[in-house]
Amino acid sequence: MNTFGTLFRLTDFGESHGDAIGGVIDGMPSGIQLDLDAIDAFLKRRRPGGRLASPRKEDDKVRFLSGIFEGRTLGTPIAFMIENTDQRSKDYGELRNTYRPNHADYTYEAKYGIRDYRGGGRASARETAVRVVGGALAAQVLGNSGIKVEAYPLQIGMVEIHSMSDMEAAEKAILDAKAGRDTLGGIVGCTVKGVPAGVGEPVFGKLQAMLASAMMSINAAKGFDYGDGFAAAGMRGSESVDAFYVEDGRVHTRSNHSGGIQGGISNGEDITFRVAFKPIATMPRALETVTDELESTELTVGGRHDVCVVPRAVPVVEAMAAMTILDALMIAGKLR
Amino acid sequence: MNTFGTLFRLTDFGESHGDAIGGVIDGMPSGIQLDLDAIDAFLKRRRPGGRLASPRKEDDKVRFLSGIFEGRTLGTPIAFMIENTDQRSKDYGELRNTYRPNHADYTYEAKYGIRDYRGGGRASARETAVRVVGGALAAQVLGNSGIKVEAYPLQIGMVEIHSMSDMEAAEKAILDAKAGRDTLGGIVGCTVKGVPAGVGEPVFGKLQAMLASAMMSINAAKGFDYGDGFAAAGMRGSESVDAFYVEDGRVHTRSNHSGGIQGGISNGEDITFRVAFKPIATMPRALETVTDELESTELTVGGRHDVCVVPRAVPVVEAMAAMTILDALMIAGKLR
Amino acid sequence: MNTFGTLFRLTDFGESHGDAIGGVIDGMPSGIQLDLDAIDAFLKRRRPGGRLASPRKEDDKVRFLSGIFEGRTLGTPIAFMIENTDQRSKDYGELRNTYRPNHADYTYEAKYGIRDYRGGGRASARETAVRVVGGALAAQVLGNSGIKVEAYPLQIGMVEIHSMSDMEAAEKAILDAKAGRDTLGGIVGCTVKGVPAGVGEPVFGKLQAMLASAMMSINAAKGFDYGDGFAAAGMRGSESVDAFYVEDGRVHTRSNHSGGIQGGISNGEDITFRVAFKPIATMPRALETVTDELESTELTVGGRHDVCVVPRAVPVVEAMAAMTILDALMIAGKLR
Amino acid sequence: MNTFGTLFRLTDFGESHGDAIGGVIDGMPSGIQLDLDAIDAFLKRRRPGGRLASPRKEDDKVRFLSGIFEGRTLGTPIAFMIENTDQRSKDYGELRNTYRPNHADYTYEAKYGIRDYRGGGRASARETAVRVVGGALAAQVLGNSGIKVEAYPLQIGMVEIHSMSDMEAAEKAILDAKAGRDTLGGIVGCTVKGVPAGVGEPVFGKLQAMLASAMMSINAAKGFDYGDGFAAAGMRGSESVDAFYVEDGRVHTRSNHSGGIQGGISNGEDITFRVAFKPIATMPRALETVTDELESTELTVGGRHDVCVVPRAVPVVEAMAAMTILDALMIAGKLR
Repeated sequence: MNTFGTLFRLTDFGESHGDAIGGVIDGMPSGIQLDLDAIDAFLKRRRPGGRLASPRKEDDKVRFLSGIFEGRTLGTPIAFMIENTDQRSKDYGELRNTYRPNHADYTYEAKYGIRDYRGGGRASARETAVRVVGGALAAQVLGNSGIKVEAYPLQIGMVEIHSMSDMEAAEKAILDAKAGRDTLGGIVGCTVKGVPAGVGEPVFGKLQAMLASAMMSINAAKGFDYGDGFAAAGMRGSESVDAFYVEDGRVHTRSNHSGGIQGGISNGEDITFRVAFKPIATMPRALETVTDELESTELTVGGRHDVCVVPRAVPVVEAMAAMTILDALMIAGKLR
Repeated sequence: MNTFGTLFRLTDFGESHGDAIGGVIDGMPSGIQLDLDAIDAFLKRRRPGGRLASPRKEDDKVRFLSGIFEGRTLGTPIAFMIENTDQRSKDYGELRNTYRPNHADYTYEAKYGIRDYRGGGRASARETAVRVVGGALAAQVLGNSGIKVEAYPLQIGMVEIHSMSDMEAAEKAILDAKAGRDTLGGIVGCTVKGVPAGVGEPVFGKLQAMLASAMMSINAAKGFDYGDGFAAAGMRGSESVDAFYVEDGRVHTRSNHSGGIQGGISNGEDITFRVAFKPIATMPRALETVTDELESTELTVGGRHDVCVVPRAVPVVEAMAAMTILDALMIAGKLR
Repeated sequence: MNTFGTLFRLTDFGESHGDAIGGVIDGMPSGIQLDLDAIDAFLKRRRPGGRLASPRKEDDKVRFLSGIFEGRTLGTPIAFMIENTDQRSKDYGELRNTYRPNHADYTYEAKYGIRDYRGGGRASARETAVRVVGGALAAQVLGNSGIKVEAYPLQIGMVEIHSMSDMEAAEKAILDAKAGRDTLGGIVGCTVKGVPAGVGEPVFGKLQAMLASAMMSINAAKGFDYGDGFAAAGMRGSESVDAFYVEDGRVHTRSNHSGGIQGGISNGEDITFRVAFKPIATMPRALETVTDELESTELTVGGRHDVCVVPRAVPVVEAMAAMTILDALMIAGKLR
Repeated sequence: MNTFGTLFRLTDFGESHGDAIGGVIDGMPSGIQLDLDAIDAFLKRRRPGGRLASPRKEDDKVRFLSGIFEGRTLGTPIAFMIENTDQRSKDYGELRNTYRPNHADYTYEAKYGIRDYRGGGRASARETAVRVVGGALAAQVLGNSGIKVEAYPLQIGMVEIHSMSDMEAAEKAILDAKAGRDTLGGIVGCTVKGVPAGVGEPVFGKLQAMLASAMMSINAAKGFDYGDGFAAAGMRGSESVDAFYVEDGRVHTRSNHSGGIQGGISNGEDITFRVAFKPIATMPRALETVTDELESTELTVGGRHDVCVVPRAVPVVEAMAAMTILDALMIAGKLR
């Protein structure tokens, strides 16, 4: 199932080293004047490059194929593609018959009996560029309704990030890990402001269930929580009450342990959640593994790789959140 | 959306103090000899009562209405209902116009403009009995294929549970909280054994995304992680490698940081995940809140309530896991 | 897949001679004051009995289990059941091992390897009572928005029905067929008034595709067309133009060859379509068939059966149309 | 909703005069060696050109973007695009503000408040090329399982087609209509051979409901029936019995009034159905209409247009049937 969403839907395609990656957005509201520069800027945030990221050059030049007329959305499907230009598939030849540990090579083979071994194929994080395009479009619609989604790094390796000096410590941790031929995990936080009360569906369609599904579909994500999250497990009920009060003619809560969602439905406060990521699976070390003929071997993967997924995961989390919130608004009939 | 699943689907209905709760299971494999006692036993595990749980008497007597003929499943929808017998709705009269903090009263009102204020209505945890029936049926199908789902308490309040003596400490913590008119949160763990490699779909249909959505749809759940989970955020890549080796003619991993899922697809190892729950929201204390006419007030909720959701959440987590795994097996065409 | 619809959804369950039939309606708008008498009146229209219909006594007493509070809809699932009281399953014993020609006995066995042979089981037309309840609820919502759905007999056997005297001829045709131990087919027409322009989705979600799927899901339906329908195949383009003009400030068409739908989307004119039904498959004649052990045999089916499906199909067509139109309105965001 | 299907799914995009049309096929079985020439040949059958068809030059050159590796399917989404090269949008300038009668111009405007007026935009029959690509892929999978789908003209204008000489009469009828600046409708038939018994779902997912939805989603389709179809309405039950007998160890029917489907499920006989099409809506005549400012006017549409949709609809019906049958096989778990 390569389609995400119910009324606002992204169908996503492409292998890392195939002709192109891309997607089709169905359910885009009509008549929206698109800001294509904003889409490019969003994409640029997840682009590889820079000291902390993979040196693979990706232009990530988006070509829109349909659904836009004279700069405005038609309400019909918006298809787009990003050509895979800098593929260097020769780097990956040694992976034809060997499964990289911690990757999807073996499970894809088990599922399909065939895989595109070049750069992870369909399982490559390159696919997240497609999500960012979808999220950028969703964010524009949300912005028109006064809703703002923002993701940010909360933790890189063991470094918790509360300030700019923490960012410097985090950057140092990344460089240290790189020097040690190792990789790091981390945590991304996200806040959504401006969602009206009443968005989300009871029982199975709870807003946190939609968000959890969206976030756990991102490569390398290992955990999701919202509001107090896992910390709530160790709290007392009396410590986690969000008392109601009235201000400006509407109901508010004095605290936000609930993370803006109660009973699966938004309560008008900020929606807050976190996504945990594991360390990047690819590192320049010899690792024990097996071939597709079930023979033991060792593998050292070369190529260009990130040390920590967090910096590039931030826009992906933000994009997935934007699409999820927009879809939930449309399902609830609350998109103004 | 009160339907869960794609090929194995549970449609769930009912308010806490309406006539009945129940569900319709569509996609049940045909020809399965049902063990109705096992379903009752599963339900009994989440039933209120006992020192640690709400004294509400619920017989939870399931009546099957369709889809079963001479003890075997027909492949047609299995509808079932549980009458609401011990409703005591007089306990709830004072809630007609006042929103309980931390509950769904306000958000339901915001969404629907109307709510059944008796006992939480649709948002009541009573609804989880329906999930347990669905899970019990799914577990029987899985059992026939050698797949076993088991959930267990991992943490109650601040007490981590590794042994029977920890359970005693946890029980004491619950009684202490009760004495202090307070409530506790906790964590439930779950392990699924016997899932073959190749189950789960790439990109948006990753097995962990399906599980996360299922778990985060449970009342009071605040977080989900799998494998190393949130702990992975602080680990180095070299610490979290699951090296591949071959034994008995198939691929295994030497460790299971991945929690049995790689690239969204099962790898044949045990699938492991955790669900964090917040403290029970109802406690016998006066709390600040507002009425539906936006006036400030205080509310002390009486009635019969649990102190910690974990004991009764264990079978609910297990049930949701069973339905999710069965659905994923059917989607992957791997149900034998 | 026993669920119909996207945002307004009916999940339907039950075998003809099981405990009960019923359904769960999800997506019902909240706050609707229900007219339960109107639902009963709708059901009565499809009830067996009377000179022209099967003498099976069915009270079709609907019991609502959830989703309604103090007479109004909550927006949560509305579950309902109709107990199967007059089952006489002894009539059906001889069908345990023999496939009735023209029925679903053989195909259910081929699909599921098991079937409830009593009265057609899941394939019985008794299931359509559930659709009528769903349609009655949908019709109330539509009525509140000024939309009226009406189905009517167009043809019974060879008799086309344009007037009351045609109805008498049709009634005579039914009695003649009954005397000849035979059965008749026919055609039901339907008109939907008051649907605003802009309802229906392009390409695969065309309004006529939704209606066709709904109608062809009714037992014994063999064909569907809308507007000029099959007759359009033999017309010239110049004969089938619906010229546009303006009246009362909105666009109208001078004729309605289009049946109220252009490009899959409503144009504000009356929506018109037809559904063709085959003769009732059960007739008191010895028919050549086989057993489930693949032996040749003859079978004469007793029991109580209709001669022509049209009289009882009229409310079923109307019900399916009401649910389809409501769902399409909700998808299009045009439900006021 | 621009996605068709449940397990085998085509998401379709593109406007007639946008950059490109195309689609994404999700759920394609993996490991299939693709015959790209067969896809081109299928497309060529619906291509404009020739004496009887629109002179618009469309190369319909398909470019595959993903999901294929070394000539075989990966099981991941297969995206493809067809560039719109011969667009001549200058022909369509006069349509910017005027609604063509019998077209979707007005209804798209009513739905979206915006439309691509060039060549029908999203509502153009050009979109059916995408369906043909999807159908060509599905047909290859079906062919590997011994299932063959074949569509053919049954009626063009008033000419019923039983033989080659009928085809000549039909061709003459088309030329006559063209000379009279008029257009014709017609009927396409389709037969599917080799579908095993047991495919199709009870109640709402009946195989005929799936086929009806698929066919009625094709541009200009006005009606669908299967087996005896509308003719069954005028038949007696005793005339329409499909007696069962056994041959070669499996159940057969002596006739096929049922069109290969009983109770919504295939019975192993040939599946037969018909699709009625209205006359082409565009003809070189002045027609009464209105502008988007609600002023009366006359419009004569130039450009290149077909006289009768039947010749080009044949491969489209075949393609939709192939995708529907493959999806139904996959849902039923009967794809071998």
